Amino acid sequence: MSEIMEMLVRRGFLWQSFEIYGGMAGFIDYGPLGNGLRRKLENLWREFFVINERAVEIDTPTIGIEEVFIASGHATSFTDVAIECKECGRVFRADHYIKEKLGIEADETVESVKEILETFDLKCECGGSFKEPEPFNLMFSTTIGPGKGKKGYLRPETAQGIFIAFKRVSDYFRDKLPFGVAQIGRAYRNEISPRQGVIRLREFNQAELEFFVDPREKKHPYFHLYENDVVTLVDKFDNEHKITLKEAVEKGIIAHQLLAYFIGKTRRFLLKAGLKEDKLRFRQHKDDERAHYAVDCWDAEALTSYGWIEIVGIADRTDYDLSKHIKHSGEDLSIYIPFKEPITVKRKKIIPKMNKLGPEFKGKAKKIAEFLKNYQGEITDSIELDVDGEKITVSREYFDVQEVEERIHGEKIVPHVIEPSFGLDRITYAILEQAFDKDVVDGEERRVLRLKRWMAPVQVAVLPLLSKDEFISVSHEIAAMLKEAGIFTEYDDSGSIGRRYRRFDEIGTPFCVTIDHQTLEDRTVTIRDRDTTKQIRISIDELVPALKELLTAEKDISEFGEIFKE
Amino acid sequence: MSEIMEMLVRRGFLWQSFEIYGGMAGFIDYGPLGNGLRRKLENLWREFFVINERAVEIDTPTIGIEEVFIASGHATSFTDVAIECKECGRVFRADHYIKEKLGIEADETVESVKEILETFDLKCECGGSFKEPEPFNLMFSTTIGPGKGKKGYLRPETAQGIFIAFKRVSDYFRDKLPFGVAQIGRAYRNEISPRQGVIRLREFNQAELEFFVDPREKKHPYFHLYENDVVTLVDKFDNEHKITLKEAVEKGIIAHQLLAYFIGKTRRFLLKAGLKEDKLRFRQHKDDERAHYAVDCWDAEALTSYGWIEIVGIADRTDYDLSKHIKHSGEDLSIYIPFKEPITVKRKKIIPKMNKLGPEFKGKAKKIAEFLKNYQGEITDSIELDVDGEKITVSREYFDVQEVEERIHGEKIVPHVIEPSFGLDRITYAILEQAFDKDVVDGEERRVLRLKRWMAPVQVAVLPLLSKDEFISVSHEIAAMLKEAGIFTEYDDSGSIGRRYRRFDEIGTPFCVTIDHQTLEDRTVTIRDRDTTKQIRISIDELVPALKELLTAEKDISEFGEIFKE
Repeated sequence: MSEIMEMLVRRGFLWQSFEIYGGMAGFIDYGPLGNGLRRKLENLWREFFVINERAVEIDTPTIGIEEVFIASGHATSFTDVAIECKECGRVFRADHYIKEKLGIEADETVESVKEILETFDLKCECGGSFKEPEPFNLMFSTTIGPGKGKKGYLRPETAQGIFIAFKRVSDYFRDKLPFGVAQIGRAYRNEISPRQGVIRLREFNQAELEFFVDPREKKHPYFHLYENDVVTLVDKFDNEHKITLKEAVEKGIIAHQLLAYFIGKTRRFLLKAGLKEDKLRFRQHKDDERAHYAVDCWDAEALTSYGWIEIVGIADRTDYDLSKHIKHSGEDLSIYIPFKEPITVKRKKIIPKMNKLGPEFKGKAKKIAEFLKNYQGEITDSIELDVDGEKITVSREYFDVQEVEERIHGEKIVPHVIEPSFGLDRITYAILEQAFDKDVVDGEERRVLRLKRWMAPVQVAVLPLLSKDEFISVSHEIAAMLKEAGIFTEYDDSGSIGRRYRRFDEIGTPFCVTIDHQTLEDRTVTIRDRDTTKQIRISIDELVPALKELLTAEKDISEFGEIFKE
Repeated sequence: MSEIMEMLVRRGFLWQSFEIYGGMAGFIDYGPLGNGLRRKLENLWREFFVINERAVEIDTPTIGIEEVFIASGHATSFTDVAIECKECGRVFRADHYIKEKLGIEADETVESVKEILETFDLKCECGGSFKEPEPFNLMFSTTIGPGKGKKGYLRPETAQGIFIAFKRVSDYFRDKLPFGVAQIGRAYRNEISPRQGVIRLREFNQAELEFFVDPREKKHPYFHLYENDVVTLVDKFDNEHKITLKEAVEKGIIAHQLLAYFIGKTRRFLLKAGLKEDKLRFRQHKDDERAHYAVDCWDAEALTSYGWIEIVGIADRTDYDLSKHIKHSGEDLSIYIPFKEPITVKRKKIIPKMNKLGPEFKGKAKKIAEFLKNYQGEITDSIELDVDGEKITVSREYFDVQEVEERIHGEKIVPHVIEPSFGLDRITYAILEQAFDKDVVDGEERRVLRLKRWMAPVQVAVLPLLSKDEFISVSHEIAAMLKEAGIFTEYDDSGSIGRRYRRFDEIGTPFCVTIDHQTLEDRTVTIRDRDTTKQIRISIDELVPALKELLTAEKDISEFGEIFKE
């Protein structure tokens, strides 16, 4: 286990799930500290992508009925190619196994895998041969209700729950585009043989925003907030650019302003959450990597010990999803958009000649006249109608054609959707790894987790210098005061003060408040800064406002008192 | 649909899931407002049961491997009896069907159901006969990984994820009892034929606290906070008491102080969340209803249009779960508790006589001597040993017995657990139903949702009196200021001001801020109170602090300005 993983497990960030039963790849437990960090990340995401956006959050089931995923395409296409050993029975994900053993990037098709297995005579690790490669659907399936029941799947993304609720949400926004619908929650991917610890999970946490727009207006009114931000872009030809978002749109590197807006917002969010500028980039999907329906797609990638890993996908999914659900459900998921001014269009209209139709078609004449009036197709010299199952051809002599003007007040469109989709587990892990640091304090190596102050699961530690009643009672009083003020506080009185500082440095607690002899005399305490180990002395009365300021901004503690110890 | 459900659907609280595909019983979507309310409920729960408790929150997978539920007993015992019609193939939950058709409470056993079907010749609604009743396991099952894979279940409760992580969590608390471990998240129950709308869900949200204690100390240091609270208790003999918790413990109605503590805390939490005192009671499980391992169990029940419904279960689960997992995993999940002072105990010890053993047992003598020294059983005149599979009887002449004193510093115990388990969906629904009200305003009937101010999904509406630029720009400025201050704010400029007030009354928004002609002159706005419809006028500068106070306490708006309109 790596040093960072060892620390994360030991200190209660992340644990192997089902550990006492031997564990299971692809599942993790969030311990108290990991849970604290991920919940903070979720709240920060809400702030950026719901509260400060024209967006709402909804919460839909993690189990979906089959129809949803037949429409979305997941039931047929959400697959990896699996290879199973004839001898030992182990099953591998083909492209990963081929990459690992041969260093080749295989196409994710059965044919491609088959060819490679044969060409290189690739064997299982046990020496056995593989069976024919087969596609394996990555959705967990289940059955709803007793008996044969109804087929269901655990959702592979939160997004589909949003698309199928589109009518309801659009109604909530009174059909006024653009609007965003967000969802935070579990998603599932039944990986064939996950090996990369916390990076490739079978059960994971997503935060997705589906931002619905008029296809002709892929812009955002707040783009000016980010347009001058310089971002690192790796385009689909593998060229790296350090460039402003404005320029990237003008040069056509990013397809349109709305994608650039979400790249900018995503970058600001990730930096605020604690990722490092030089370990963050945006990589464009190559033409053969991008989903066929997507106009353009960018991944945010973080540099970790696993290399650059995808942590966010930002895609223009066009009207693909809504159109699929329109087709499969038969429901109208379009939006009526009124024109600013009604427009006038000329169109040709059929005027049936009853005096001709009557003699010729007798009892059917009236019905035929109705059909002609409502005829929407191209008007030619001979029109074929389907009247109650009977095909009737009506030639030009039975009708006149008139040009009429119509006032049109609006039109129906199927909105396009831009989707920033966040993998919260990977972001949490990347934050932890990038924050993990070592330095030397008092001549000894120190391990310190340099989390952003507002992200730390324990924000303040309250420490009596000595484990004596008079120190302890004041400490409890202060801890209660800080908790009351909404600060995540922990009290600790076990071990030497130096050891306790190290303990809180290791879990990233930005500030330690120490109650010492002087506290009993003048009701002052010390605040120690995690990163610099500098200390100041401050009155208990000023503690809450000072900490609140320190925890929401990157101010130096020297602004709140004189540094007395480095 | 009831009037309240119609409103909840129309306004975006709750929707039928998969609606465009015909829906599916037992699943709901939380729309923007329902999600807002439930998230607030979760945060309030965290405040009560994590932050202000000696407790932490963890987050474990919703999928569990089979071993977990074999140990917990769910794989065999988490069942309902199902009856399937031979003709139409419909399947019903037997006890519900029998109750509905015959008004009888059936035992939930196959035998009991069979007897009733025969005795009353009960038929399906279609007239068909039923097949033999069968137990149906209520866990959703799935397969992890490809091929035959590994059997998994969707968790029926969050609790098991806590029990199997017990060693890790206990380590986090450095094995110091008592401590609580909380989890908030999805749980699943594959109901046979759910019919009660949002009350009986197949996928639902739980908040559970597992509070681990020394079995000899079922007390809580903060019991004094609630001991004088008068609660409504319905005991297992159906007697109702309105009684203080202290008295209920003293009289033995509640088994012990720790259960009473959590009943008290639960009551305060539910009242704070918005349930009404007179529509809330605690009902004790009857002897035949309680799980066999539980010492005592109380349900919090809320009165709704479905009658009294269970919303919280508070049980003393003893060491049942940990002991089961100890047995099935082979891991030691006990805690070592040091005595305050080491104690001295006398015990008898065997001293082997080598000079006798040697001649008799030859080569085995040394091994037998080892076994005798380590012998833990009762010392009699003849001791039987199992030495490497061979049974050897050693009589009194081969050993001496000495009485020795030993210092013992502590002991190992398996903690007991008290579990308050909350059904968040039912609580959310009960809050909404109990808050739904009608009155008459300006001679017209008004629908108003009297949510607690701190629970309202939209806390403040910002409304320009007229839809003119000068009103709108100030309104946007104020809305941004309130959002920045962390207040859930919505802006609305469509329709008459009266209609907009009604719209926000209906979704429970406690305060409307209106920007009118006077605002443009002196930068004052009006605040309107949802419940009384009274209004005050206040300067924009004072708006944030006033609203923050109003939203966290039940103060009257007259404290912040002169009432100018009733």
